[in-house]
Amino acid sequence: MRVRIGEIAALLGGELLGDATLEVERIAPLDSADARAIGFLAHARHAAQVQRSAAGCLIVAPALRDAAAARGAAIVCADPYLAYARLTQWWAARVRTAPCSGVHPSAVVEPGARIAASASVGALAYIGAQACLAAGAVVGAQAHVGAHAELGEGTTLHARAVLARGCRIGARGIVHSGAVVGADGFGFAPVPDEGGRWEKIEQLGAVAIGDDVEIGANSCVDRGALEDTVVGNGVKVDNLVQIGHNVRIGEHSALAGCVGVAGSARIGRRCTFGGAAMILGHLEIADDVHVSAGTLISRSIRKAGVYSGVFPFDDNAAWEKNAATLRQLHALRERIRALEKRQ
Amino acid sequence: MRVRIGEIAALLGGELLGDATLEVERIAPLDSADARAIGFLAHARHAAQVQRSAAGCLIVAPALRDAAAARGAAIVCADPYLAYARLTQWWAARVRTAPCSGVHPSAVVEPGARIAASASVGALAYIGAQACLAAGAVVGAQAHVGAHAELGEGTTLHARAVLARGCRIGARGIVHSGAVVGADGFGFAPVPDEGGRWEKIEQLGAVAIGDDVEIGANSCVDRGALEDTVVGNGVKVDNLVQIGHNVRIGEHSALAGCVGVAGSARIGRRCTFGGAAMILGHLEIADDVHVSAGTLISRSIRKAGVYSGVFPFDDNAAWEKNAATLRQLHALRERIRALEKRQ
Amino acid sequence: MRVRIGEIAALLGGELLGDATLEVERIAPLDSADARAIGFLAHARHAAQVQRSAAGCLIVAPALRDAAAARGAAIVCADPYLAYARLTQWWAARVRTAPCSGVHPSAVVEPGARIAASASVGALAYIGAQACLAAGAVVGAQAHVGAHAELGEGTTLHARAVLARGCRIGARGIVHSGAVVGADGFGFAPVPDEGGRWEKIEQLGAVAIGDDVEIGANSCVDRGALEDTVVGNGVKVDNLVQIGHNVRIGEHSALAGCVGVAGSARIGRRCTFGGAAMILGHLEIADDVHVSAGTLISRSIRKAGVYSGVFPFDDNAAWEKNAATLRQLHALRERIRALEKRQ
Repeated sequence: MRVRIGEIAALLGGELLGDATLEVERIAPLDSADARAIGFLAHARHAAQVQRSAAGCLIVAPALRDAAAARGAAIVCADPYLAYARLTQWWAARVRTAPCSGVHPSAVVEPGARIAASASVGALAYIGAQACLAAGAVVGAQAHVGAHAELGEGTTLHARAVLARGCRIGARGIVHSGAVVGADGFGFAPVPDEGGRWEKIEQLGAVAIGDDVEIGANSCVDRGALEDTVVGNGVKVDNLVQIGHNVRIGEHSALAGCVGVAGSARIGRRCTFGGAAMILGHLEIADDVHVSAGTLISRSIRKAGVYSGVFPFDDNAAWEKNAATLRQLHALRERIRALEKRQ
Repeated sequence: MRVRIGEIAALLGGELLGDATLEVERIAPLDSADARAIGFLAHARHAAQVQRSAAGCLIVAPALRDAAAARGAAIVCADPYLAYARLTQWWAARVRTAPCSGVHPSAVVEPGARIAASASVGALAYIGAQACLAAGAVVGAQAHVGAHAELGEGTTLHARAVLARGCRIGARGIVHSGAVVGADGFGFAPVPDEGGRWEKIEQLGAVAIGDDVEIGANSCVDRGALEDTVVGNGVKVDNLVQIGHNVRIGEHSALAGCVGVAGSARIGRRCTFGGAAMILGHLEIADDVHVSAGTLISRSIRKAGVYSGVFPFDDNAAWEKNAATLRQLHALRERIRALEKRQ
Repeated sequence: MRVRIGEIAALLGGELLGDATLEVERIAPLDSADARAIGFLAHARHAAQVQRSAAGCLIVAPALRDAAAARGAAIVCADPYLAYARLTQWWAARVRTAPCSGVHPSAVVEPGARIAASASVGALAYIGAQACLAAGAVVGAQAHVGAHAELGEGTTLHARAVLARGCRIGARGIVHSGAVVGADGFGFAPVPDEGGRWEKIEQLGAVAIGDDVEIGANSCVDRGALEDTVVGNGVKVDNLVQIGHNVRIGEHSALAGCVGVAGSARIGRRCTFGGAAMILGHLEIADDVHVSAGTLISRSIRKAGVYSGVFPFDDNAAWEKNAATLRQLHALRERIRALEKRQ
């Protein structure tokens, strides 16, 4: 695809510096952009890279306007990173083939399913009885929509995603390949005097996902035990994330890869969780809490802020010494106390 | 569904307090139960909630009999949590449509597969050559049963689960969507003098799963290198759990979400592993060991008990100070020793 | 299968001690091998086990030649573990049925896909438009190959694996069941003044995987934001591993189960990562770095070596005391300083 930078500037609503008829063929990272690429500077602190960049055109913040103008073509936008996000969307809509609308002949659609005329159902997809696909919904190849499940307007289930029986997702959502929405929560009652046997607690709730939610590849959101597991509007979930039954996640929170949220936890709005962070069950996490990667949250957090808890890595020999000593830490404290008393 | 509480009391074998003809329509958590719901108190320590509950009927332990009677309708059971589990099963059997028995016309069944007359094979399922489905087995839509694999009586593979070639699961099991039983174990021999190249060790064993086992969504149980990976009767495995090749897990152990068990580990009976706990390879874990969430077990555990090892989280600034100091911990111990000697 | 040990010795290029016509029926671990099995001793340190083994034949290193000869039949190989790996490959090729070549009638092949005559496409597989399968490529039952994707010579996608649109994998690769290659990377720009809303950054790159790569069950490799995510030749990835967008992994590195590599990290050659290790985004890891299981790598590593960072587990009571004290560690250091000054 070839695009005139004038067209991009108009799309982004930015000020164009340079020749509007100049064409670019791709969006590129700053360090690999050449004359046929448009790049961007997300942060003013990267200003030093402006002069070095070989990009045909740069998207920059107002603070870098003059530096960019001295270099060559540029588009000045109040928020270059957001402009970049919008440009990728515009670009993707032009270079990607849209799914054909209609139902592929190899798909299985059970009786009673309601599929809007403009919805698209790919090859080998499965749509259960009484399922409901709104206008513009896309069910990819080999994806699975259970009985009574609902897909909102413009929502896409990618190849091999599962939206199980009775689960609902709102408008403009994306469920990536391999994600499973609506498997059973992990609930068992111990049976006394039977050698440790567990009795299954059937999971009678479902999963209710709001609008504009993205669920990553091979992630899981379990159905609730009695009521629904709830994922709020605008929540973004990366790959291989586990969300247990009865969890509630507030609007616009974001969970990075490999995060786990145990059953019945309640997470506030605009929270972020770094990769592999873990939240234990039945906790409450306030709005605007940010948890660092790899941190296990073992009690409720009532106050917005940044929370961490990771053993700092080191070369193995140093770690071994410190880790071994750590097991005596309480005793060391007692020895310090003893020394203090003696003085 | 509307059910008379007299019927529920009879089902649970509990003492009914109140009007047997009173009807409830759902099972609900204590705090959201209304007059049309039946709730339960799992623990006597929740006694204070009895009076506040608006539930139409409550399941309570004998210790709360009088308090419950003073409030309204109740069913007294020796173990209310177990009673609740059984009620959910009874409820689910009534509100869920059973899979139609027989083979869906879109399913692929390879020659030589043996499928009991009462077994059910869903849409787009794949049953390999010589696979064996016992009476009442259910293979959901888009699930995959490899050649020579075996499903016991009443066992269900949910949509898109995989039971690969030669793997076996006993009676009354449940394999949730996306779970993969029988992928290759991770085994390679380094090849000297070839720049770090790895030679694949073909995984010639399979996976043998006992009766009453549940495997969560997107979890993996790898086939053994030479012999089988073994999961004992009654074991419960949550979502996104990794069980490596040659592992053996004893009866009734339970593994929460995101747990990893590395190759050749042997885990005893009635063990529990909190979310994201990790067990290194070739270790032995005794019966009745309980590992806390997020703990990495790096050596064998010979004695029943509770084991933990997690860096306690804190607000980020406090964590940074403590974590930085941790890297000098061994040196701090030496300084304490020096102080002690000088006294 | 019955095999004469003379044939095995010829295959492995080892020296045969004993009767070449002796037959074995399986390869077995040392401790369970009987007279009909061939076993192996990977390490000379297991020498004491030679005499105790009941194996029909043993594969041993030259250092154990005499001890093995005194016991019975043996094959002496320079590297018994590598010999074992090769023997498993030879064995698997004989006991496993090869996939039938050709396209299963239930598979869906979109117009324009190029499928070599010797390639094999299993039941219910999906091959997108313009996808390319080289000679000997195998697409298992229910696997998914997106539009413009490419499978190299002899590469296998197991049942239900996904190789999404435009992603490429080289020769002799293996992608296990449930793995997802080419889902979107996790990229969003925050939108100011809209309550925390995230704007999606479309992921315009793809995934480029080299030759001889293995990707484990339910693992994910995300497509790049602008350029490709790159996995080098010979890389081995275990199950449930997350590889974020724009990551580059050097040749022959190996990632154990549950590892996470965040976006834009660059990993060198011949690195190894133990189970559940996590690498934060945008870091650089040098060649020949080995990261212990459970370790979170939070800054770049410039030097080859072994790196660790895990809280050592303990019985819960001891851990609680030490963990609680850990939160005062910085303060303890100050107290030690004060004591030192006073002396």
